[in-house]
Amino acid sequence: MKRFDIQAPDMMLAAAIQAKIDQKTKPLGALGRLELLALQVGLIQNSLSPRLIKPVVMVFAGDHGVVESGVSPYPQAVTRQMVMNFLAGGAAVNVFARQHGMRVRVIDAGVNHVFDPHPGLVDAKVAMGTRNFALEAAMTPHQCELALAQGAKLAAGEAAAGSNVMIFGEMGIGNTSSAAALMSVLCRLPVRVCVGRGTGLDDEGLQRKISVIEDALACHQGGDSPLAVLAALGGFEIAMMAGAMLAAAERRTLILVDGFIATSALLVAARLEPEILHYCVFSHCSDEAGHGLLLEQLGAEPLLRLGMRLGEGTGAVMAYPLLQAAVNFLEEMASFESAQVSGKVE
Amino acid sequence: MKRFDIQAPDMMLAAAIQAKIDQKTKPLGALGRLELLALQVGLIQNSLSPRLIKPVVMVFAGDHGVVESGVSPYPQAVTRQMVMNFLAGGAAVNVFARQHGMRVRVIDAGVNHVFDPHPGLVDAKVAMGTRNFALEAAMTPHQCELALAQGAKLAAGEAAAGSNVMIFGEMGIGNTSSAAALMSVLCRLPVRVCVGRGTGLDDEGLQRKISVIEDALACHQGGDSPLAVLAALGGFEIAMMAGAMLAAAERRTLILVDGFIATSALLVAARLEPEILHYCVFSHCSDEAGHGLLLEQLGAEPLLRLGMRLGEGTGAVMAYPLLQAAVNFLEEMASFESAQVSGKVE
Repeated sequence: MKRFDIQAPDMMLAAAIQAKIDQKTKPLGALGRLELLALQVGLIQNSLSPRLIKPVVMVFAGDHGVVESGVSPYPQAVTRQMVMNFLAGGAAVNVFARQHGMRVRVIDAGVNHVFDPHPGLVDAKVAMGTRNFALEAAMTPHQCELALAQGAKLAAGEAAAGSNVMIFGEMGIGNTSSAAALMSVLCRLPVRVCVGRGTGLDDEGLQRKISVIEDALACHQGGDSPLAVLAALGGFEIAMMAGAMLAAAERRTLILVDGFIATSALLVAARLEPEILHYCVFSHCSDEAGHGLLLEQLGAEPLLRLGMRLGEGTGAVMAYPLLQAAVNFLEEMASFESAQVSGKVE
Repeated sequence: MKRFDIQAPDMMLAAAIQAKIDQKTKPLGALGRLELLALQVGLIQNSLSPRLIKPVVMVFAGDHGVVESGVSPYPQAVTRQMVMNFLAGGAAVNVFARQHGMRVRVIDAGVNHVFDPHPGLVDAKVAMGTRNFALEAAMTPHQCELALAQGAKLAAGEAAAGSNVMIFGEMGIGNTSSAAALMSVLCRLPVRVCVGRGTGLDDEGLQRKISVIEDALACHQGGDSPLAVLAALGGFEIAMMAGAMLAAAERRTLILVDGFIATSALLVAARLEPEILHYCVFSHCSDEAGHGLLLEQLGAEPLLRLGMRLGEGTGAVMAYPLLQAAVNFLEEMASFESAQVSGKVE
């Protein structure tokens, strides 16, 4: 059963877009990665004049049973506290999104707290956090399906309202453990190369985190299908991001991929529907240890390397102006002909 | 004689700025390079709440006698044609500066063309281009002094009008040859590691460019003082940028350093006044072959690596939002206390 109908972009316009890029008043290729971005966005939108419309950051929050096993130096309460911080506009992602004129939507995917209703908060809660994947499956197959469907519905709603570029961010104490476990199983890599210090574990904590995940994977019997792995080891915010990404690509929306957790959600999505990668721009390589290797596994070349490791979508929001610049130069720059500038002497 | 009085920033506030950064709702250090930028800008402005005011891009244009020796695949006329393009708002730097709300000023430092008066063009012409440094000194000592002084006057004027962050860009067919020659002499490096393909030389052209510069340096008898080297091998736009950078740092203005040519101007400035480096943010590593090595020589870690090699200030303008983000998070993000978020469990 193919639930997401993701088609690779039509390549018909490729030569015309490249010609438009090459006629701009600059040496051939002199805008580097921006030129590749312009081509990619043009192909995705099947247009010589692509535009970025209603950019949105969706921040999915969820709690993780595995924190009981001591994988994070921060208490679980920080997840709900940070949700309140997002809603109040005080988190890093709020600051950067304001700077770039992006809306932020906050989604309770499965936080271990009952929030009062708030106009900025979407209630998509699957449960009060996952179960501890060190002891049992993090979620039931039904919960996993529900999370995917909720994410897909939210992204589809944004696309229907006109958004054609989306960022999916996350918050969830313990979620680097889920992401590392997903990466280890789906990429068949040793746990130790997938695990990092998360919010700031010391050496001892890092060893404990590695052991917890190794022990969990030794017991893992869910099979190797991406959805089975996601249900066994994932988080509600990760599953919801995966669903949102799939629905976004299905609607030919550009996805600006954030850091380690968001990339782990994309890994699941890409194992389900590899064509999704055509719609992805990899915004940054975070400082979380496994992220560089995970990007390699996806054949991704990130735009930024700023040593960030905050999640929330912050790395992707930082890369947004580069995407905007790519679209802008394609539309606004003069051509050699229009500006009467001489070309190369052959 | 010390003509520029550049003082290292006062470090008094360093601990207080770092404490403010560390109290923001994020794991320690999780914003990576942005945190270092916030500290640097805070120190330069000696403030816990630094602000970026009236950011300006000054694009200096000049012609180069060395183009007679066949070092560029583009005709010299492109310099003046691109000046017209800047004035019409159609060049890459115009597009990106508009995106980020920066003003662009265009300065005729020594283009081989007499322009009609234009409200957007500053006439600071030293001469109708430099002489061919392969045959004789590019400029007289007097011309070199004049160019430095004009640049200093322009930057001082912007600072007096309230600008506290400046980008210096350039346009000048042939100017990668000047920049490579300056780098080779001032850093005592072989010409071949300093020279790149500029606007797009083929292999044969690259060899010719290397030979022209090697031959010129073999005859170079101007001595090793930075100003003597600048006069012998530089360009009017390079000298004017160096003067502008020195005056900017003297006035505690942040300098966002662009690509290979701009960095060669900074190299001259830093050899005159090493304290200038405290005021510099290195925006990007360009694809021009020598730039990475030149940045290393200056101990610089660039923010972006996007394969750009266009000059004009474009790389620096692309990095401006990162600087703005650093200032914004320092000012706008909630603290653990204000947002009632729990800290790390010790």
